[in-house]
Amino acid sequence: MRFCRFLFKDRVWWGMLEDEGVQPLSAPPYYRIVREGDPLPLEEVKLLAPAEPSKIVCLGLNYADHAREMGVELPKEPVIFLKPPSSVVGPGDKIILPAVSRRVDYEAELAIIIGREAYEIPKERAFDYIFGYTCANDVTARDLQMKDVQWVRSKSFNTFCPLGPWIETELDPADLSIQLKQNGEIKQKSTTANLIFKVPEIVEFISSIMTLLPGDVILTGTPAGVGPVRPGDVLEVSIEGIGNLTNPVDKKD
Amino acid sequence: MRFCRFLFKDRVWWGMLEDEGVQPLSAPPYYRIVREGDPLPLEEVKLLAPAEPSKIVCLGLNYADHAREMGVELPKEPVIFLKPPSSVVGPGDKIILPAVSRRVDYEAELAIIIGREAYEIPKERAFDYIFGYTCANDVTARDLQMKDVQWVRSKSFNTFCPLGPWIETELDPADLSIQLKQNGEIKQKSTTANLIFKVPEIVEFISSIMTLLPGDVILTGTPAGVGPVRPGDVLEVSIEGIGNLTNPVDKKD
Repeated sequence: MRFCRFLFKDRVWWGMLEDEGVQPLSAPPYYRIVREGDPLPLEEVKLLAPAEPSKIVCLGLNYADHAREMGVELPKEPVIFLKPPSSVVGPGDKIILPAVSRRVDYEAELAIIIGREAYEIPKERAFDYIFGYTCANDVTARDLQMKDVQWVRSKSFNTFCPLGPWIETELDPADLSIQLKQNGEIKQKSTTANLIFKVPEIVEFISSIMTLLPGDVILTGTPAGVGPVRPGDVLEVSIEGIGNLTNPVDKKD
Repeated sequence: MRFCRFLFKDRVWWGMLEDEGVQPLSAPPYYRIVREGDPLPLEEVKLLAPAEPSKIVCLGLNYADHAREMGVELPKEPVIFLKPPSSVVGPGDKIILPAVSRRVDYEAELAIIIGREAYEIPKERAFDYIFGYTCANDVTARDLQMKDVQWVRSKSFNTFCPLGPWIETELDPADLSIQLKQNGEIKQKSTTANLIFKVPEIVEFISSIMTLLPGDVILTGTPAGVGPVRPGDVLEVSIEGIGNLTNPVDKKD
């Protein structure tokens, strides 16, 4: 099933995608599914990021090809970092380039949406705690990432975490094609089969450190082909079985 | 004024400290102060961390003496990182040492509590966006911090962000004595006058990157004297004009 968040007549809703359109729900779907009112046509709602995370935990260097292009060794353990919830935007929202950076890159990623409180979960049970998956763009100010050593500033600017267009709950994440198009041209193309640490191992690792809550988001890393964006660009992350997340790029006023 | 969060008869409240005890409030005090019911004796409530942050933004190496003891150069710009809200515990709560680390350190810090949504705030207006201050312990698995390069794992374990005992709103943070006692012995002793980047500059820098929300927490860095903790230790962070944050240390079951 597919679940989304949307804005309709100034109110934010969770919704369920059905043949008839978007069925509004009275609560986040990872708690329980309670219909409220009638379905709305998809084209009449504004889709929002399908998550309200208490935290966004991200993996660095989790595709071997990307680690090579960054000139670093393959990690023996997952490398994690956090993005703040304030960096989240939805489908169609602008990515705004901060004036302080001269090089901002796209990074297409598979995002995991947590469905149940998860602490110290062995990988064999990881799927019990996953609600579904969506597309993410881990936008990164590459120059600041290199300069700062710590990655937090470079990945935490407002608008640097597009998520969407919706959550797909019935999906095996083992081998999904993932790609990023910049102005229609394919720049990243891989499959989640190339993940160094797989989805269940990622949940095991992160939940060994911190308690994951329903709605929390995990970005699983980006494949090779990262590159700079310019104002006016249109970026499209596509993941097999989920859909397309499209965001225009603009500079600050 | 002093504001706290507390548990009383299985319900969580915000409260205001008065001569008569703790006055329960019907909403977080950074929104508005609405009394609900009668004051309770302080000794009858369990104090909780006085914050429900959407994010915790932290400064590294923000006291010159600590940067020296870590053997690193003084930063020319603030170095920031994030701790997840899941790492927060309150006064008296246990700090639990994870089995994966062999060296966990205390780090006494002044914490800023944000009172109003803040984006691109110049330092001259920073105090308009600060609600108050509390004590923090930025507990850090030093061995993992060194091994990982990225600091996130080492600082994100559950219980690694004690905050409290309450928020003091009437305080000039320019020159407050700050100390940490381990089992009654002073281990860290400095003043916030030694901060490399001062409170208004910190708010300016972080709000140039991301939107801060009411209740968000900023940890301003730790002075020299960091050191390892052992199960059974009692750690006490004390800041002039605020009070004492005491937490026992235990190992995982």
